[in-house]
Amino acid sequence: MSLELFFNPRSIAIFGASRNAEKPGRVILRNLLQGGYGGEVYPLNPKATEIEGLKVYTVQDLPDVDLGIFAIRAELVPGALREAAEKLKAALIISGGFGEVGRNDLEKELLEIGEEYGIRIWGPNCLGIMNSHANLDATFIPLERMEMPKKGKVSILSQSGATLASIVDWANMKGMGVSKLASYGNQIDVSDYEILEYFAKDPETDVIGVYVEGLKDGRRFFEIARKIRKPVVYLKAGKGEKGKRAARSHTGALAGDYRVYRGVLKQAGMGEARNLEEFMNALSVLERWRIRGKRVGVVTCGGGFGVMTVDAAEENGLELVELELKNLRKEFPERVVLGNPVDLTGDATPEMFERVIEEIKLQVDAIFVILLFQLPRLNERIAEVLHQHAELPILIVSPPGEKANRFNSILKLPVFESPEKAVGAFRTAYEACSRLE
Amino acid sequence: MSLELFFNPRSIAIFGASRNAEKPGRVILRNLLQGGYGGEVYPLNPKATEIEGLKVYTVQDLPDVDLGIFAIRAELVPGALREAAEKLKAALIISGGFGEVGRNDLEKELLEIGEEYGIRIWGPNCLGIMNSHANLDATFIPLERMEMPKKGKVSILSQSGATLASIVDWANMKGMGVSKLASYGNQIDVSDYEILEYFAKDPETDVIGVYVEGLKDGRRFFEIARKIRKPVVYLKAGKGEKGKRAARSHTGALAGDYRVYRGVLKQAGMGEARNLEEFMNALSVLERWRIRGKRVGVVTCGGGFGVMTVDAAEENGLELVELELKNLRKEFPERVVLGNPVDLTGDATPEMFERVIEEIKLQVDAIFVILLFQLPRLNERIAEVLHQHAELPILIVSPPGEKANRFNSILKLPVFESPEKAVGAFRTAYEACSRLE
Repeated sequence: MSLELFFNPRSIAIFGASRNAEKPGRVILRNLLQGGYGGEVYPLNPKATEIEGLKVYTVQDLPDVDLGIFAIRAELVPGALREAAEKLKAALIISGGFGEVGRNDLEKELLEIGEEYGIRIWGPNCLGIMNSHANLDATFIPLERMEMPKKGKVSILSQSGATLASIVDWANMKGMGVSKLASYGNQIDVSDYEILEYFAKDPETDVIGVYVEGLKDGRRFFEIARKIRKPVVYLKAGKGEKGKRAARSHTGALAGDYRVYRGVLKQAGMGEARNLEEFMNALSVLERWRIRGKRVGVVTCGGGFGVMTVDAAEENGLELVELELKNLRKEFPERVVLGNPVDLTGDATPEMFERVIEEIKLQVDAIFVILLFQLPRLNERIAEVLHQHAELPILIVSPPGEKANRFNSILKLPVFESPEKAVGAFRTAYEACSRLE
Repeated sequence: MSLELFFNPRSIAIFGASRNAEKPGRVILRNLLQGGYGGEVYPLNPKATEIEGLKVYTVQDLPDVDLGIFAIRAELVPGALREAAEKLKAALIISGGFGEVGRNDLEKELLEIGEEYGIRIWGPNCLGIMNSHANLDATFIPLERMEMPKKGKVSILSQSGATLASIVDWANMKGMGVSKLASYGNQIDVSDYEILEYFAKDPETDVIGVYVEGLKDGRRFFEIARKIRKPVVYLKAGKGEKGKRAARSHTGALAGDYRVYRGVLKQAGMGEARNLEEFMNALSVLERWRIRGKRVGVVTCGGGFGVMTVDAAEENGLELVELELKNLRKEFPERVVLGNPVDLTGDATPEMFERVIEEIKLQVDAIFVILLFQLPRLNERIAEVLHQHAELPILIVSPPGEKANRFNSILKLPVFESPEKAVGAFRTAYEACSRLE
């Protein structure tokens, strides 16, 4: 069985569809209904007859369903699962209170039931699952705090539920198109590598992001990762000694030696984001472009930002090629510095940026374009200019500002607040693409 | 003479107050008038009689003034300066087209005139000067692109004009209180170290930021820097080989060996920001707090963010102390992890954060507080809770998000988008304070 029953269930039973509107089971029910999930939904609650306008079921009158979602107290989960086992094909256990607080006995019981009845078990102790293409929001974060993402092709798996929630809200702010989201918790049965494999084969997924503290089975993960024909970006937390200890308290993960992880994941052809922001930024680059190489050009209207971009590019191992620019010398005033960076100086216009891009686009794999909207001759037209040439990766650096934000908001490409962020996102995306050619 | 005539001139003459509303001299005139500058302003322009509602002067009818601002073609500056020399005490040369394009002869001429008449010369080839406390905006960025900052106590000197403009707009977005801003250009006379010394003595300056590519006289700069009794944060651009070359094209600066610079500036007790964002963030920390030490505590509602914060703290050499927390064990549910980080988990409330802060505030020099506003029980009350304890540095990490931004906008303390940013800002601020005790 693949994980299709989790990401595309035709019907769902919710154990713990509470009368209290704030309880996780009730929030999940509401998210499914308000999110527009098209399958059948069966709330279960021994103390109620109707919830959110739906008839409440008992296990006895429940029909066969694809997925049971459990959001009841940990001690009650094994009993409930066993009772309903004949009617379920898969179980998503949201509830916490299992291995992470020492109740490994409850986990063992769940596994035994799963094996006996052929039920795959996801979790326990997780945020849940989202599939925007199925309008499926099976997480317990209410929509007022985190909406279903825009449909898209980025899928993310995360060992941390709260981190995933933050990622989703951040992605929504960026307007990133998302496909599937998976918080897998204690992974007693369904494992990180299995979800990765599912994403690898999923036709609705083009780009994969992985937040991980420790892997369940590093070798299996590596074997799957190295065969994926899609860019994968990962973020590893729990790097130092204290970080590893914190990871152990958090997910019980043996965070392992960071250098070993790093070596293995890079060898598998994954791109390493150094922090969560770089992770988000790299995904937003990959959502739009595949990176073919690391020969880059820099075009700026401010010399200082040009220098900072070159510093970052050098530090990240990018190749600042010698640009062939002699055609431009007669067109541009003397103060314009024709090198790499090209420094158009403070009088730069959108038309000057356009001419440089036309001239260098065949010479590089990507262009870093630095826009300082304090400068008076830079205006809205630059949005069109850059968009028209965006078959090539164009990474815009434009710092935020009281006045600058008005311009930044109309740019039609990803905008990075600083040279280091644009360069870091690019390097990560490049790493993630380097084995795909 | 100190630099008082530049930062607090009682009267200003503008050479190049053009009839064209977009020319630099005209923009400066408008900025002075609209900014509310209280001194006398005398526009000069041989081709006009009235500009911006002011009578236009000739050198002949010009009275004695403190500061002459020159925004005319480079070749014309020496002649104009000489003609008006008897009536000026100081000269700010905005115009470019001097040493940076090989016209060192013009600079030599300016210096000779300055020496002959006892006129200090600022520039040429610079953005200009701001002093919010004097409502003085003597830059050529129009107010529609960059407003006068809120009055405050952060002063910044920058070798790059466009970078400074971006910094100001960014500071305005952050609501940072700014005192004085100095873009010094080719520094043929007034030098970086002299401005630094002026800021050191200025009663309206409590915190100093320095953007530098190469110093005019490293030894002098160091001698002044090490005696300053105020925190100083610097950002050095032009680090690698290509970066140094780009700096040379930009400001003509010999960027020098980065490691040497770094050693010297750190030895002088300055805090090094690794990039422009860290520079901004460190200044916003120092605007509010002096950092007494590097013993830190971490309180989170999401385990993953706790791990990432610990990673960053370890990498930056902060001390994650063993927190004494036994009083809290009976108050908090079992799932709460009482370590460093304290992980309140997904049910965290403002009240729980408050209890932890009360308990640990005497044990640490600063607290990192991680807020994930996707979690349903975190609400507006947290703003008050944190604000009430903010005599201690409290560094809030709250990632941006479609829904989260509503909460982030009401927090009354600096908010950092990621653990790494909060930690980096803190480390820089700590370095900048470490010699002040």
